[in-house]
Amino acid sequence: MGLSEFDLIQQYFSQIGDSPSVRVAVGDDAAVLQLPEGHVQLISVDAAVSGVHFLPNTSADIIAYRAIMAAASDLAAMGAKPEGMLLALTLPNAEGEWLASFAEGARRASLVTTMPLIGGDTTRGSLCVTVTVVGSAPVDRYLTRSGARPGDRLCVSGTLGDAAAGLSLLENTDVSLSAKHAAFLQQRFTQPTARLALGQTLNALATSAIDVSDGLLADAGHLARASDVRLVIHRDAIPVSTALQAHPDQTQVQEWVLRGGDDYELLFTLPPEAPLPNDCTEIGLVSEGEGVRCDGAEHMTGYDHFGH
Amino acid sequence: MGLSEFDLIQQYFSQIGDSPSVRVAVGDDAAVLQLPEGHVQLISVDAAVSGVHFLPNTSADIIAYRAIMAAASDLAAMGAKPEGMLLALTLPNAEGEWLASFAEGARRASLVTTMPLIGGDTTRGSLCVTVTVVGSAPVDRYLTRSGARPGDRLCVSGTLGDAAAGLSLLENTDVSLSAKHAAFLQQRFTQPTARLALGQTLNALATSAIDVSDGLLADAGHLARASDVRLVIHRDAIPVSTALQAHPDQTQVQEWVLRGGDDYELLFTLPPEAPLPNDCTEIGLVSEGEGVRCDGAEHMTGYDHFGH
Repeated sequence: MGLSEFDLIQQYFSQIGDSPSVRVAVGDDAAVLQLPEGHVQLISVDAAVSGVHFLPNTSADIIAYRAIMAAASDLAAMGAKPEGMLLALTLPNAEGEWLASFAEGARRASLVTTMPLIGGDTTRGSLCVTVTVVGSAPVDRYLTRSGARPGDRLCVSGTLGDAAAGLSLLENTDVSLSAKHAAFLQQRFTQPTARLALGQTLNALATSAIDVSDGLLADAGHLARASDVRLVIHRDAIPVSTALQAHPDQTQVQEWVLRGGDDYELLFTLPPEAPLPNDCTEIGLVSEGEGVRCDGAEHMTGYDHFGH
Repeated sequence: MGLSEFDLIQQYFSQIGDSPSVRVAVGDDAAVLQLPEGHVQLISVDAAVSGVHFLPNTSADIIAYRAIMAAASDLAAMGAKPEGMLLALTLPNAEGEWLASFAEGARRASLVTTMPLIGGDTTRGSLCVTVTVVGSAPVDRYLTRSGARPGDRLCVSGTLGDAAAGLSLLENTDVSLSAKHAAFLQQRFTQPTARLALGQTLNALATSAIDVSDGLLADAGHLARASDVRLVIHRDAIPVSTALQAHPDQTQVQEWVLRGGDDYELLFTLPPEAPLPNDCTEIGLVSEGEGVRCDGAEHMTGYDHFGH
């Protein structure tokens, strides 16, 4: 890390969030965290690339906010408490206004997720934002994809398909939809919320969980495979927002609901007796077998960064 | 993470290294580590970009090996024991031969550093490798840049300038140097070694440490600033390899020794009474003041990803 680069990071990213777990944050060779005794640490990394995860003309604060939320969503899916994040930024040039906006988005996401920025790296290159998130959970009390058991209920938080519809509305504004509904859907894409509080609640209730980032059918497929079970989804039970119900193209809406990514809701399995948390919906069940069945059809596909 | 992408990672990166600390590795939403009680965790992230950190025609196994070693070097500089790594790969396309070679380089680096691969992400985009490393250290027993005190001795491991000379030889082979010396210098660039064992030894001896990744003067500047001290370097004391001593352009060699990056040696400060570890050299001292002085001249500059 050279001097100007060091100055850049110091200037824009020196004090984003704080936490009693952080012993050393940005500015040394590595960050130092001290987690509570009897806890495991959970770590995930997510890259956000221009043209893949966001439109090329996206403002820097939205790029930062979305990238951090997408990464934090992995902690939510594991039922972890967020402890900190590291940002690796690859940029074509170091432009002050862009960096200030990016830092502002990072600061907002840090506040919402309660994750301080504890480290980072900046390099010249094509725009790419890589977010590493660190969380904690009591030993033997975190969620995985592999705990679903036949007889469990399949549930999802919030509503699905909104973010895909919102992205579509950003690319094509010529759709007959009220400004209020359009703004809601666009915001679901540009400013998603990682379900961190729900994840920590599910920690004590659910048998398995995954976040819906690739689309319901794809992520259900990952869960089914990891748990070695079959998931049966009732299409009519899938929660759809009022805004999406008002969309003029309901054929497309059905696709978004089943295959749209980036909603960052949680898909999880509950034992028969467990209470359903607020703002969650039962959409199917876990049975013996493999794969994902939705209203009589088998599904195993979803978003693939290299497949198309 | 889509299905083909999932398959790719499973195929090439599913079993790289192992450690008793790893509870959940590649394949879930986050990795889970359980560190020994009474330990802190250390985390660092480093991006390696084509054309900045490696030549565009570099083979994939070298790209992986160097990127992982560069990241591991940050753990060495903190005196941490390596616990695991996460790889975020952005690739223009998913080509099996390239991925197999990359995985082989990652496997070699994992063996040498004893860091299992515990997570990752792959995305389509310009080639960029982001490595997150996680280590552990006993509470209150890790090295920082900020502990140097006036009266300490300034020391460095190994020899300096080799990697910069090696990179130059890769770009221009028309230099009068024996094949053996040329191979040594090139290997110092393509296959650096993170000084992990030395870092853990220094943990009990040194007052501060940093790895030499930006060049001696630049990294000494970071150490001086963080510790709020002045570093005085005796140029003649800086260790230079036999191969570099045989290089025909000794004016250039002096530049490489002072400003060449990528050697990944450790620069550290020892109290007066502490023993000097093997393969280390005393090159100066810590005094009151600020900045870096080398043979009468003040220096504060080094490699800067955006400055040139």
